[in-house]
Amino acid sequence: MNINVPKSVEWNGDGFGCLKLIDQTLLPGDLSFVECSDVESVYEAIQKLKVRGAPAIGIAAAYGVLVGLQTVDDEAADQDQWKRRFDQVCDYLAASRPTAVNLFWAIDRMKSRFTAVQHLAIPQARQALLEEAHLIRAEDQAMCHAIGKHGAELLGSVSAVLTHCNTGGLATAEYGTALSVLFTAQDMGKELHVYVDETRPLLQGARLTTWELMQRAIPHTLICDSMAAHVMRAGKVQAVITGADRITANGDTANKIGTYSLAVLARAHQIPFYVAAPSSTFDLSLTDGNQIPIEERSAEEITEAFGKRTAPLGVQVYNPAFDVTPADLITAIITEKGIIQPVDQTNVRQQLGHD
Amino acid sequence: MNINVPKSVEWNGDGFGCLKLIDQTLLPGDLSFVECSDVESVYEAIQKLKVRGAPAIGIAAAYGVLVGLQTVDDEAADQDQWKRRFDQVCDYLAASRPTAVNLFWAIDRMKSRFTAVQHLAIPQARQALLEEAHLIRAEDQAMCHAIGKHGAELLGSVSAVLTHCNTGGLATAEYGTALSVLFTAQDMGKELHVYVDETRPLLQGARLTTWELMQRAIPHTLICDSMAAHVMRAGKVQAVITGADRITANGDTANKIGTYSLAVLARAHQIPFYVAAPSSTFDLSLTDGNQIPIEERSAEEITEAFGKRTAPLGVQVYNPAFDVTPADLITAIITEKGIIQPVDQTNVRQQLGHD
Repeated sequence: MNINVPKSVEWNGDGFGCLKLIDQTLLPGDLSFVECSDVESVYEAIQKLKVRGAPAIGIAAAYGVLVGLQTVDDEAADQDQWKRRFDQVCDYLAASRPTAVNLFWAIDRMKSRFTAVQHLAIPQARQALLEEAHLIRAEDQAMCHAIGKHGAELLGSVSAVLTHCNTGGLATAEYGTALSVLFTAQDMGKELHVYVDETRPLLQGARLTTWELMQRAIPHTLICDSMAAHVMRAGKVQAVITGADRITANGDTANKIGTYSLAVLARAHQIPFYVAAPSSTFDLSLTDGNQIPIEERSAEEITEAFGKRTAPLGVQVYNPAFDVTPADLITAIITEKGIIQPVDQTNVRQQLGHD
Repeated sequence: MNINVPKSVEWNGDGFGCLKLIDQTLLPGDLSFVECSDVESVYEAIQKLKVRGAPAIGIAAAYGVLVGLQTVDDEAADQDQWKRRFDQVCDYLAASRPTAVNLFWAIDRMKSRFTAVQHLAIPQARQALLEEAHLIRAEDQAMCHAIGKHGAELLGSVSAVLTHCNTGGLATAEYGTALSVLFTAQDMGKELHVYVDETRPLLQGARLTTWELMQRAIPHTLICDSMAAHVMRAGKVQAVITGADRITANGDTANKIGTYSLAVLARAHQIPFYVAAPSSTFDLSLTDGNQIPIEERSAEEITEAFGKRTAPLGVQVYNPAFDVTPADLITAIITEKGIIQPVDQTNVRQQLGHD
């Protein structure tokens, strides 16, 4: 199937060029692009969540370094000016979203490469940095495609799945994680129908996942989170697939609030529950999910999410960002390295290559 | 506890007077009252959902008949004018919300009473009609209180419950059904904490249930529907209690979408799941829940619920208004006549007095 889906993060040019991003704040209403030719606009795009999703932010920051270095003239500048500007750009971009781990990770990779090529002339060093940014993106792409391939094989003859939150190409170089499984299944000629949880409070499913499925013409149906059980009981889906934010050594999985609910409901309806996530999601320093702290977010995400106050002023609200799904409710974890099934400490270690 | 909670529907006066309603369309932002002194304003209040909830609509319509009859002069009018006006008012009010069964039921009761007292002079007939309206309200009150009493005893030592949608005093004469259990528990001196599902798509929990709990100073916490499983797993609630829209002969229960999900989750967490509903909710002509048609409502309730579009244009949406919870997931059904437990056909018939 030949589908031309816009990329979340793209580089137009060679050593000099422009970073092109989908402005995700305008989705799903408008598909509009931001073209960043100076580092200030990259900073703003990251800060204002025009680009979001950990891998996509990392890739944008890596190219952002190139954007920032465009003020350095290959002929006129000396190595000191080049180095000063590089440090300045890295520090500046690192401040755009201080809680985004992938942002620092990507900038650190650019710094390592900078150090490795500091003996080269500026034009060659610039090329090396561009290669590094391309590599960061290519690695993410390859990871997404590997997850997609393993997952699509696992799905077998499933004809309809239910998913939660947004785990697609917008947050990554392309394809994503759980959605990559569905996109890859489509590439393999499978016909799938996708039920999409709207994913309260921030509605990533309603706003972004439906948009990505529309781009690829994959049939889908939007539901409220509370309707998932009814959909399962009616036999409308044969599998549930979600992403993950953090997975512990025994396979317990933290993910967007509502994921645990789906896992319990899937078990009650004898439907397999799959998690799709890169191996970088595993934190083997934690033995189980009890050690994962649950971030609580602001009440207004629930009481004023739609631009209109929908609960009394002063109401007490509980807004956990994540929940933890115990490993025994997860049928399999799909990583770029392969399938972990059944999900337990031994299989996690083995699949991640720690045995 | 001496709590002065505004009534959803109130009559101020004797045979002549004014119908005072909480304008529910302005909740939870403003507590504002509509005072209806002519039948046109009663019609508008029902039509524009200023008064909502089946019992509350019925009570408003009964008093609405009295409001409409105020144009008739006790001294000057003859019996023909009195009868013509009565018929006119009944027909007019019946058109205010053509799908509200309780509206017709209440108007029919007023018609029966009108017929029964047609030998009386107008002032005496007017008093009899006022008595009938008061009776309709009093019966609803008594029903709510009986449900509350049975339910509060059943709750025992439970210290925190989870509820869904709005089942309180706003929709009834006072106290409601599932919330009546909690209000009565409070009256009995029990200290309860209530977790309130926001109840997508229309957020009756966020908008109305939290407001009613605030009015009574019952501690409560608003959550998104998808958080209920996480709250149960954390041991924050020891029971779930909801209302019902329709219950079949075997105890299968149709209620607001999301109820079935809670019942499955409660079972998985070994938490009792209670349904509170008047005996009028039972439809013994249906043998089980498979015979209950599921109303589907408009996509816009999900995609544009609060004045802002939150999903791509043209997205396919599934919006069932209700789901069906099978009897075997229901620990007990609380009616004004007593407790049905375990929930099965024999106990339903016995409790409803059909044996």
